[in-house]
Amino acid sequence: MRKIYLSNTPRQEALERFLAETTAKELTEKVPVRAGLGRITAAPVFARLSMPGYHAAAMDGIAVHAERTYGASDQAPLELEAQQDYVNVNTGGVLPQGFNSVIKVEDVQELPGTKVEIIAPATPWQHIRAVGEDVVAGELIVTAGHKLKPADLGALLAGGVTELEVIARPRVAIIPSGSEVIGPDEARKPGKVPDFNSTVIAAYLEEWGAQPIVCPIVPDDPDKIEDAILAALDSADLVIINAGSSAGDKDYTFSVIDKLGEVFLHGIAARPGKPTILGKVRDKAVIGLPGYPVSAYLSLEWFALPFICRWLRQPVPEREKIEVSLGRRVVSEMGTEEFVRMNAGYVGGKYIANPLTRGAGVTMSLVRADGLLVIPANILGYEQNETVEMELYKPRQELRYNLLVAGSHDMIIDLLATAMKKDDPRINLSSSHLGSMGGINALGRGQAHMAGVHLFDPLTKEYNIPYVKKLLPGKNVHLFNLAYRMQGWIVPPGNPGNIKTVSDLAEYEIEFINRQKGAGTRLLFDHILEEAGIKPQQINGYSREEYTHLNVAAAVAAGTAGAALGILPAAKAFGLDFVPLAEERYDLLFSDDFMNSPEAELVLKTIADPLFGEQVESLGGYSLRDAGKKEL
Amino acid sequence: MRKIYLSNTPRQEALERFLAETTAKELTEKVPVRAGLGRITAAPVFARLSMPGYHAAAMDGIAVHAERTYGASDQAPLELEAQQDYVNVNTGGVLPQGFNSVIKVEDVQELPGTKVEIIAPATPWQHIRAVGEDVVAGELIVTAGHKLKPADLGALLAGGVTELEVIARPRVAIIPSGSEVIGPDEARKPGKVPDFNSTVIAAYLEEWGAQPIVCPIVPDDPDKIEDAILAALDSADLVIINAGSSAGDKDYTFSVIDKLGEVFLHGIAARPGKPTILGKVRDKAVIGLPGYPVSAYLSLEWFALPFICRWLRQPVPEREKIEVSLGRRVVSEMGTEEFVRMNAGYVGGKYIANPLTRGAGVTMSLVRADGLLVIPANILGYEQNETVEMELYKPRQELRYNLLVAGSHDMIIDLLATAMKKDDPRINLSSSHLGSMGGINALGRGQAHMAGVHLFDPLTKEYNIPYVKKLLPGKNVHLFNLAYRMQGWIVPPGNPGNIKTVSDLAEYEIEFINRQKGAGTRLLFDHILEEAGIKPQQINGYSREEYTHLNVAAAVAAGTAGAALGILPAAKAFGLDFVPLAEERYDLLFSDDFMNSPEAELVLKTIADPLFGEQVESLGGYSLRDAGKKEL
Repeated sequence: MRKIYLSNTPRQEALERFLAETTAKELTEKVPVRAGLGRITAAPVFARLSMPGYHAAAMDGIAVHAERTYGASDQAPLELEAQQDYVNVNTGGVLPQGFNSVIKVEDVQELPGTKVEIIAPATPWQHIRAVGEDVVAGELIVTAGHKLKPADLGALLAGGVTELEVIARPRVAIIPSGSEVIGPDEARKPGKVPDFNSTVIAAYLEEWGAQPIVCPIVPDDPDKIEDAILAALDSADLVIINAGSSAGDKDYTFSVIDKLGEVFLHGIAARPGKPTILGKVRDKAVIGLPGYPVSAYLSLEWFALPFICRWLRQPVPEREKIEVSLGRRVVSEMGTEEFVRMNAGYVGGKYIANPLTRGAGVTMSLVRADGLLVIPANILGYEQNETVEMELYKPRQELRYNLLVAGSHDMIIDLLATAMKKDDPRINLSSSHLGSMGGINALGRGQAHMAGVHLFDPLTKEYNIPYVKKLLPGKNVHLFNLAYRMQGWIVPPGNPGNIKTVSDLAEYEIEFINRQKGAGTRLLFDHILEEAGIKPQQINGYSREEYTHLNVAAAVAAGTAGAALGILPAAKAFGLDFVPLAEERYDLLFSDDFMNSPEAELVLKTIADPLFGEQVESLGGYSLRDAGKKEL
Repeated sequence: MRKIYLSNTPRQEALERFLAETTAKELTEKVPVRAGLGRITAAPVFARLSMPGYHAAAMDGIAVHAERTYGASDQAPLELEAQQDYVNVNTGGVLPQGFNSVIKVEDVQELPGTKVEIIAPATPWQHIRAVGEDVVAGELIVTAGHKLKPADLGALLAGGVTELEVIARPRVAIIPSGSEVIGPDEARKPGKVPDFNSTVIAAYLEEWGAQPIVCPIVPDDPDKIEDAILAALDSADLVIINAGSSAGDKDYTFSVIDKLGEVFLHGIAARPGKPTILGKVRDKAVIGLPGYPVSAYLSLEWFALPFICRWLRQPVPEREKIEVSLGRRVVSEMGTEEFVRMNAGYVGGKYIANPLTRGAGVTMSLVRADGLLVIPANILGYEQNETVEMELYKPRQELRYNLLVAGSHDMIIDLLATAMKKDDPRINLSSSHLGSMGGINALGRGQAHMAGVHLFDPLTKEYNIPYVKKLLPGKNVHLFNLAYRMQGWIVPPGNPGNIKTVSDLAEYEIEFINRQKGAGTRLLFDHILEEAGIKPQQINGYSREEYTHLNVAAAVAAGTAGAALGILPAAKAFGLDFVPLAEERYDLLFSDDFMNSPEAELVLKTIADPLFGEQVESLGGYSLRDAGKKEL
């Protein structure tokens, strides 16, 4: 097997090459207008009929010959005889032959018999809706390459067009590949990876106006991959293979495309997304996408989207861009364009954005992202507080309702998000898991609206206030009690290590898993160690860190740790045991700026709501007895 | 029948009343995640499983006990024995039980037999993708009331969620009513109106996430309307009756809703859209929409959209707003909020917007609109050049590619739009039919990119240049030949009036239909009259005006005019006869600012393309022999 090296082709160059080497077929189909919403016209459409198709009365009243009304006045009212001088008409009704004006019913005096009287003359063609006032036969309704909106359908029907030629949606086959890949509904097994990429890729394609065809999963076997590609080519205009696009032992995508057709490119100077393959087989475009979800979706957007847009004769949609101030430093590698998922919010009069996890495997980073920071290949990164341009995933207006929550994360924040959305559906809570100290600092730098903090001060035996005063001296901030929550040892079911105190951890040499520096739980653990006179070195795994309660619990559940310090709901999520240790206070810190907003008011109203309290307490390990109490 | 008076309730007040008097049912349904795109979550969704569900190697290499590698160095390489000290692992593979670190394949030296050698120690948990790195069991994936995006589907499946509870789409029944209403596919007859509103309303509802149900057409008969509403209520959450919502003799919508249930409101202080009815029957919301298309669609958006958004727990989408400079004066009535459809473009460094036809019946005004100018009830209108805020129908970025074409309209402009779109799909041509003089003036005021002009100067016998010099003295503009086109008499088939010259018009007292003041064709007619020594008063219908060639032809076709002056394709569109009179020159005038843009370059490239010329000439009556020639 020959060794494959990935190139480092700039993304734009790769795209140009891909579009130059492939073509869009001009396939069209006829659809009834009523099924035309969102479809793209294949040709300009002209009205066949006029709307209205006849001269119509635009008012209820009488149709007259204008010329025969001249001279009518207050002083000299004019009598008109039915049929001969006038005919009654209703709005929308046909203007009778030989009449050329309409007088409103309000201006007509009925006389006994069949006569009426008017006291002012009519001007020719007044109150008449002329033939073609709405749409006139022969008029252009929509150009070619036009995406049909609801009102367009109305104008088409009004113009006598009941079916029209639209561009056929490109059919895109998705071939999930990998011997470790199983269907998303199949039972999970260690070493097996569920194929959720196909669902996501299909959804993107659907949004972009293509017609996705998800093929069966193919194992890492060149012959089977070959068969799958050939079968897909029969019915598809573009074939996507996901994954096997890298340069490992079992990555056959390159060699199969190379054998069946031509590979234009292998390797893009971008991260995530580098191991992308662009080629063609039997004159149809083929894309090999990387296996990591974020890499796959980004690469799909770089290459499949422009291909589809060209096919549909639509411009590639441009994302709105805004200037943001960076909440944290972002580093990047020279020579590689980097794509960093960001959350963002409007804090103290400017847009603030924070980088989310960079991992190419973390789909949640896309779920949480408000936009994308694209770092050009020749930039080594940006400093904290630097102003950079960011692409938005949602309209700028929506960011105004994104509340940035920094600091320690707790499930109460998730429930708070849902409860607040019920009151005001515009609101989103966007969390950065920075730990309590990180949260206070972010708030101090004006990079968050709120911070979740639970920091015990051994000196004063007080929660949070000493830290806020020390880290934000002289700063006007507001601290509210959210909950008391129980911290304890998260241990395997049945507590096989029989852990009750921190001394047991050291004594029984239990493998511990710790939280990151600056986290309230880490500080609590350090305090417990100090109180017990135990040194960090005496604890196995003291330096192994995770960022959330759930992640340490996951390690205990997986058997790679024997104990962790955390909260009850995390233990419950994994069916683990929990040995309660101490109740701590979890507060919300508000910036002064945020304090005066309607959103802050809604936060306080929500957490003080007894129904919300019940909901949180039902998780176990929480008490909301002081929720909403101002602590500082 | 009692007389009904419409109220003048402010729109916002009406909406608040409507929402307060009606409710959203909390109906949910289970859908597979793969069918979840765009659906709204009914509850927060937490991960059931972790992804990865096991500790996985993040690199190809060997799994080791980190502690047993300590001390390995260049000077003291360490030998490891297979199975006992290390196990081979592939990226994504399971970390074998009892190992806690991965060394990349590049850092491992294979030795003969089953041994390998390393020259650096491993740190614990390096190159390992921990359980739950992507999604951890118990983690919140999406909140309640969240609209699912493609990546969300991936995170849900990764988190072991394969189906979820979403909010059921509200079912909305649309009842088309009116004895004059026929199906959109039925043959047209005078006095009959095709129902295209139902298709448009259904398309809007679809876009907003509701489930439209189009009911059969009901005549103006209160009993039948009553039956239709009651039948619709069985399966719908909201019933819309279109129309019969005004206060005429045959408008039964009010009385039927009033009889069956309750009318909250009848009449909104807004135009178009005033005759709207809001009510409820059997605890379900009922809306009576006006019959005129633009009125109906605006009112639908004011009331049905917020109802649906509340149902789906989504914020009512806010349109982007921009400041525009008004190309023309806009007047408005005191006490009525007015909704003016506008086209817009970016001319000379600022956004310019022009009001489109105000008629409530003109669906084409919505087809052409780039946005909406909402004039508050207490404002009497705005002056030309005044800066106002406008709501956009499309993203602001797209307006940059909207070319504003003022002046005389010709079908060549429509073909040009389609041809340019083929080269650059972002481009749109937005025409204001202002007549040639109006076009020159709009260009002079910086309110258009281009103007179509065909103005004959009797003094110099020259086309266009004398007018441009006179109307825009000292202004640097550019004039290009687009086409020569034949003007002539548009007459009924067979030319029953036997019209050959303008004298025939006067002599045989033919009913003429004229073009508006400032139109090139109007000036041509005046010139012809003058040359023949005929006075305008001698021409029947001299003062009856229409704005386009097609509209005068429509009047001839309808039999309300016996002749018009216009171009061949207009006659052909209606199967009319055409008596050629004179060839005139139709030019395009560019502003100096536009001249230097890539779009101007594309215009010139397109009109000089022989293929384009052939296409235009095939319409009949055109010659593009000098297309693209610079005339000034």
